[in-house]
Amino acid sequence: MAARQLVNDPDDFVREALEGLQRAHPGLVRYHEDPAYVVRARQPDKVALVSGGGSGHEPLHTGFVGSGMLDAAVPGAVFASPTAFQIRAAIAAADRGRGVLLIVKNYTGDVLNFRIAAELAADDGIQTRTVLVDDDLATDGQEDGAPGRRGTAAVVAVEKICGAAAENGASLDELTALGERIVSSARTLALALEACTQPGQDRPSFDLPDGEIEFGVGIHGEHGVGRRPYAPVRELVGDLTKPLVAALGLDRGDEVIAIVNGLGATHGLELSVVHRELGGFLDGLGVRIGRALVGSYVTALDMRGCSITLLRADDELLALWDAPVRTPALTW
Amino acid sequence: MAARQLVNDPDDFVREALEGLQRAHPGLVRYHEDPAYVVRARQPDKVALVSGGGSGHEPLHTGFVGSGMLDAAVPGAVFASPTAFQIRAAIAAADRGRGVLLIVKNYTGDVLNFRIAAELAADDGIQTRTVLVDDDLATDGQEDGAPGRRGTAAVVAVEKICGAAAENGASLDELTALGERIVSSARTLALALEACTQPGQDRPSFDLPDGEIEFGVGIHGEHGVGRRPYAPVRELVGDLTKPLVAALGLDRGDEVIAIVNGLGATHGLELSVVHRELGGFLDGLGVRIGRALVGSYVTALDMRGCSITLLRADDELLALWDAPVRTPALTW
Repeated sequence: MAARQLVNDPDDFVREALEGLQRAHPGLVRYHEDPAYVVRARQPDKVALVSGGGSGHEPLHTGFVGSGMLDAAVPGAVFASPTAFQIRAAIAAADRGRGVLLIVKNYTGDVLNFRIAAELAADDGIQTRTVLVDDDLATDGQEDGAPGRRGTAAVVAVEKICGAAAENGASLDELTALGERIVSSARTLALALEACTQPGQDRPSFDLPDGEIEFGVGIHGEHGVGRRPYAPVRELVGDLTKPLVAALGLDRGDEVIAIVNGLGATHGLELSVVHRELGGFLDGLGVRIGRALVGSYVTALDMRGCSITLLRADDELLALWDAPVRTPALTW
Repeated sequence: MAARQLVNDPDDFVREALEGLQRAHPGLVRYHEDPAYVVRARQPDKVALVSGGGSGHEPLHTGFVGSGMLDAAVPGAVFASPTAFQIRAAIAAADRGRGVLLIVKNYTGDVLNFRIAAELAADDGIQTRTVLVDDDLATDGQEDGAPGRRGTAAVVAVEKICGAAAENGASLDELTALGERIVSSARTLALALEACTQPGQDRPSFDLPDGEIEFGVGIHGEHGVGRRPYAPVRELVGDLTKPLVAALGLDRGDEVIAIVNGLGATHGLELSVVHRELGGFLDGLGVRIGRALVGSYVTALDMRGCSITLLRADDELLALWDAPVRTPALTW
């Protein structure tokens, strides 16, 4: 067996990691094993925020449970949606009688299971609304009937900003509108230098020829939208950023929140260089980075590469972004 | 050229990353380019803490500049000591007339250059004291004249805890004694599943045969003290932890601060599982993990693996550990 990961039985990987998360942060989160979800150790009286999806993207979403962000996160198996039964249980655990905002990345399984869970929650007498996150520009412009843009790193902004608004007492309707406004104002593009390897496997999900990168990748080890020659990071960042600027219609004097995200095995030095290049590129357009989050927040196991997310900012979004947050993975 | 890293010219890698760090955290840190060091954006009137060493270990040390931790960090090239000239300049920039504590990992180049810088600082009229960090148990028990134990992840505890004490108004002598007490109470062991790759290179620093791991590695891509067969993480964690417990003389009823550290390319799920196994192992001995830090804090570029640090805790250390900290990489 190849020594690629620190695991016991791969089938126990996610459960054991969640036990480890609770051990590391007993004051912040509580792990409920069956059905599996993670909730805040202390839940205040406010609209609850629940998100979830396949595992392998940590710290998303379980690492964002805490004050000022999520009230519960529902982890599936690696790269697999959680069940509707899990999601229903997490909704019930998080609800404080003021309704629950569901933050769902746009993948067929997640959308379906969160929808069923919302119906089951309605049967339980719990009101829910859903914000669908579909920020991945690489999957834009598909034909009718296609699943549409994937949900990737903009979900961090939705969870952070809506989380702050919920702490401030926003209603379920207000949070839904706020979440939808964030999603419509944010786009992401990613590239990979190396694919990721599933727990217990010894080969990555695809091989890249020497000197090529995969452009427009998602967060599940799938192929991107095209191969390109490897180039200095300055060029690669330009290639990622130009379409984002165009899609959001950013112009001189505009301000953005930028998320420079490592996909799993990317070193902090590299992400800092990416952020430098992003800053230089936007400087040239007169677009200001009002706030930045640079680190590995939405990963694809050990994929090597990065994503860039731009979110058009205004005073309301910046103030909510700056509000205090305390979770295992994000604190200020 | 192989597409292993997001870089421009490898010779510019560290400088460009430091520019990116400042761009991401303008309220926290200021990057001085020549000579290169990073200082707090606002420096209060207290004993200053300065650390540094080769780059490639980020977020160490530059990511720990901020309130409650370091006042300045001095980065060398990748895996190379900063010059005495750089360190002297950082000392002068950080000093507020109350003296400067130098936190130095035990490597020949760092020890020499910090010593020369301390002499130069004395010429500048600045009082310094040095805490030498030598926690790596893999390099214990060498013959006379050898460099002694390497400094690894325990340096995070020294920086955090002495940083808190400095904010509380501790004197230079008190901080020196505190730092030495932490070092003598902490030991670390690491293992690697895969070596690291230098910027601009396309091959790791060593190859591991299928099914073997490297035990007792340091943080510079060098070989460890021996090869072992790959095993479930439960066994590997036991192999790392047993010698730490013995070296610190930990016994039933004792309490520790645990640092479960990723070496660069290790996924958060893996580190959570390592922490779970560490907790289970120490439970069996009746040793309590009072506080835990789980994440990639002292890296060896993109090395795949982890280190475990145990620090024997008491009420004073726990209170200082819990004190507020706000840096690019550590905030609570």
